[in-house]
Amino acid sequence: MIIDCHGHYTTTPANVGAWRDAQIAAIGGDAPTPPDAEYPVTDDEVRASIEGGQLRVQRERGIDVTLFSPRASWMGHHVGDARTSLDWTIRQNDLVKRVCDLFPGRFVPVAQLPQSPGAPIDQSVAELRRCVDELGFVACNVNPDPTGGYWTGPDLSDRYWWPLWEAMQELDVPGMLHVSQAENPFFQTTGSYYLSADTTFFVQALSSGFMVDQPGLRLVIPHGGGAIPFHWGRFQGMSVREKWDFEAATERIFFDTCVYHQPGIDLLLDVVPTDRVLFGSEMLGAVRGDNPTTGSGWDDTGRYLEAAGLSAEQRAEVYEGNVRRVYPRLARYLSGAAL
Amino acid sequence: MIIDCHGHYTTTPANVGAWRDAQIAAIGGDAPTPPDAEYPVTDDEVRASIEGGQLRVQRERGIDVTLFSPRASWMGHHVGDARTSLDWTIRQNDLVKRVCDLFPGRFVPVAQLPQSPGAPIDQSVAELRRCVDELGFVACNVNPDPTGGYWTGPDLSDRYWWPLWEAMQELDVPGMLHVSQAENPFFQTTGSYYLSADTTFFVQALSSGFMVDQPGLRLVIPHGGGAIPFHWGRFQGMSVREKWDFEAATERIFFDTCVYHQPGIDLLLDVVPTDRVLFGSEMLGAVRGDNPTTGSGWDDTGRYLEAAGLSAEQRAEVYEGNVRRVYPRLARYLSGAAL
Repeated sequence: MIIDCHGHYTTTPANVGAWRDAQIAAIGGDAPTPPDAEYPVTDDEVRASIEGGQLRVQRERGIDVTLFSPRASWMGHHVGDARTSLDWTIRQNDLVKRVCDLFPGRFVPVAQLPQSPGAPIDQSVAELRRCVDELGFVACNVNPDPTGGYWTGPDLSDRYWWPLWEAMQELDVPGMLHVSQAENPFFQTTGSYYLSADTTFFVQALSSGFMVDQPGLRLVIPHGGGAIPFHWGRFQGMSVREKWDFEAATERIFFDTCVYHQPGIDLLLDVVPTDRVLFGSEMLGAVRGDNPTTGSGWDDTGRYLEAAGLSAEQRAEVYEGNVRRVYPRLARYLSGAAL
Repeated sequence: MIIDCHGHYTTTPANVGAWRDAQIAAIGGDAPTPPDAEYPVTDDEVRASIEGGQLRVQRERGIDVTLFSPRASWMGHHVGDARTSLDWTIRQNDLVKRVCDLFPGRFVPVAQLPQSPGAPIDQSVAELRRCVDELGFVACNVNPDPTGGYWTGPDLSDRYWWPLWEAMQELDVPGMLHVSQAENPFFQTTGSYYLSADTTFFVQALSSGFMVDQPGLRLVIPHGGGAIPFHWGRFQGMSVREKWDFEAATERIFFDTCVYHQPGIDLLLDVVPTDRVLFGSEMLGAVRGDNPTTGSGWDDTGRYLEAAGLSAEQRAEVYEGNVRRVYPRLARYLSGAAL
């Protein structure tokens, strides 16, 4: 079985974006929140957006199931205030739940959190509980820089995050550390911002060792861990000098395989212990289309994995075993008995 | 011949740091600038700091010459104002010049620039001219984020930088894009900040294509280019979708070999055209000490290069040919006829 741990609903029907535009336009006005109604999106529209998109690609590539969350670049935690973020997040999570209900066994829901810069994390904890307890979500995306590229909030070791870490452990759900759109124009969202964020959050975990105090917490760093595997030696060497406990600080950090060329995947699998690598492709994401040299999709990461020097057993770990272990709530979906 | 393109004076005698501390302590006071005198540092102290440090390692590793600039993490462009930065920079450049004069042929000077957030770039242009024209410097370090990790200045494509690009082309000197200490506590200086910066500046060059308008400009990205080579496929794929001209935008961007493990160096040499890779080790830098598994220095990058699958000709390019081509003013130092 092939489980893609990293998919976002990037192909939403037009009315979803229109609702968000209206919400943003209303910020600061007399009617700060848009109508409470659900998105005016029909099941047929949702079906069409998936059948022609992610489901088609799943079938083409032999991917059985995708962990599916709201579009990351649209989370926009820096937009408006905590209420703005909550209104939007609830709808986005409910929409992802609809996709998963319409395609049982194919997509499994992962939550966006209603974070907002400077706001307490409690609202995110409450929405996580709603998603997991009431809707059957199996994980969440955590944005450690809700400022959108100004990097001025509390770092991952700060007590600010503790209620969230505790809830995640109690609910037994992991979190993918994933930023959203870069509000700071110094960064390009899916290139420099995403990869800088991935790198930075790993280093926060490494240098602070905060995960040692959260013994059931499991975090996933997307995009192959940003710069980290390429500089594995740098961080091991720095750890000696800085007296960081590399192993204890990072043993529950996992990397997806969203690295879009063979040498990158080969390096990832070479340096990172195989039990910490999770299959992911982020299709349809920032890098759609085919590599003209190979004729295959840039984000068809299964091809790189097949060509890498793994044993069949190791490959099965990356495709399935590791993902099941990191996302235990996924099991009920895979047995055909969805919530 | 082996030329290390990336070395900083990290082993300065104690009075250098003391001078800087006094300067910082005086900021905002009645006497905002410290005494105009040179550092109270003797030639013997300078000799000792190098002989027991960088020169010893050069000899151990067979490195013939190092391009040598002031300590990067100490540039501290965010500290004080433009005058603070200028006072400090002049002294640091003069000190590096002393090192190079004391060890002719072994160290070749590269300038720090007196940048300051919000200040015009003219002061940096003037100091660059002084260093190149009067002191024989062959290159400079450019800090594209003088805010120290708040990333709020003009990006590389901004007209702000043009006077500097023009002077660099006129003087025929390249620039290494190197940030300094992270003032923003969200970042760890030599880990997340350096690598995020390297990644971000490459993406600014790629997405803006600004170097096309600066046809003689050559830029070096340190630390193996941050996350870029590991995600080479990502950026090639994004370039197709975003209509960036990958080749034209980045053909005069060079990467050093400051990647401290074999798989990283192998990947770097695999994906980046060999004529864009420059030997560098950044000794003695952030990652001192030996890898307990191999018994060799983490930053002994020559060992990785020797073990990589390069032809003798390609290895000579990386060790010498490419560096000579990118730093044409270096030639006079290598012929034994220093300025």
